[in-house]
Amino acid sequence: MKVNVVVTPKAAVLDPQGAAVCNAMQHLGMPEVSSVRIGKYLEIEIDEKAPDVESRLHALCRDLLSNPVIEDYEVQNMGSAE
Amino acid sequence: MKVNVVVTPKAAVLDPQGAAVCNAMQHLGMPEVSSVRIGKYLEIEIDEKAPDVESRLHALCRDLLSNPVIEDYEVQNMGSAE
Repeated sequence: MKVNVVVTPKAAVLDPQGAAVCNAMQHLGMPEVSSVRIGKYLEIEIDEKAPDVESRLHALCRDLLSNPVIEDYEVQNMGSAE
Repeated sequence: MKVNVVVTPKAAVLDPQGAAVCNAMQHLGMPEVSSVRIGKYLEIEIDEKAPDVESRLHALCRDLLSNPVIEDYEVQNMGSAE
């Protein structure tokens, strides 16, 4: 089973990396770009689907994969067994 | 209009950051995790939809946002005008 986790900076948190990329894009031929925010994208391969795997994954998202003070996370594709 | 760009390491390229996270997850309560690959997730806000904005975005994805030697990129939500 393949699960994607997206970790993004919270809206209220300054994202200097995104601001730099936004500025670069505006100067490299895309002046209509108004904002860029940069996060992490994790493709996680899970061998089997245990009943409590989703709750354990959410716990690890909070404890290991994201910093809940400044970041939000989203688990994608959890339902689709592959 | 909001466009997401996902930049991931190519399958043939070693991803040490992903390997480290995979190892950590296995030791922190998810032994069924077999592989983790980590990429970047960009949320790009574009003011207006010019007819050639998609081709210019793809050009910037190749030149600025990704390293085509070791990374793939994917543009998401391009069609949905918001």
